[in-house]
Amino acid sequence: MSNEELEALREQLDDVNLQLLELINKRAGLVQEIGKVKSRAGQNRFDPVRERKMLDMITENNEGPFETSTMQHLFKQIFQASLELQEDDNRKALLV
Amino acid sequence: MSNEELEALREQLDDVNLQLLELINKRAGLVQEIGKVKSRAGQNRFDPVRERKMLDMITENNEGPFETSTMQHLFKQIFQASLELQEDDNRKALLV
Repeated sequence: MSNEELEALREQLDDVNLQLLELINKRAGLVQEIGKVKSRAGQNRFDPVRERKMLDMITENNEGPFETSTMQHLFKQIFQASLELQEDDNRKALLV
Repeated sequence: MSNEELEALREQLDDVNLQLLELINKRAGLVQEIGKVKSRAGQNRFDPVRERKMLDMITENNEGPFETSTMQHLFKQIFQASLELQEDDNRKALLV
């Protein structure tokens, strides 16, 4: 019984992993779009005020079970990876 | 025009952030459930084979723009945080 329960939970987890994968990539695509718009406008891609606002929104809406500090850490990792993605795009643009 | 475009993209990004927040917490809740089932069965909570399988599934399904190595890094951070959450639950259970 407990093995069946475990299998059912793992199937749900796999499903959530795939949804997360898709959503994280969707987010990355949006960040790339934002990077392009800012680049055309001659604006710096990294915006600490905007990043702070996003973290505040996370804090306000976090209902757990993850602690807000943990959630902020995870989002900062996503922000960092997104910024690196924009820098890659920028390097590629310079090489064209 | 470009400012309006930026604002529209940022609204979409905020929406994706909130969806991510909800999904990461949903995942954490599932991991807690799995931890309870494994605990009742006397099984170790950390399962490297299962973690490998999840990373393989990420690799197989990643369509970018994030590189698979970046995506694996992000998921490993989520796995790590989830494991810490289970350990917290375990400590709380021991204190009761």
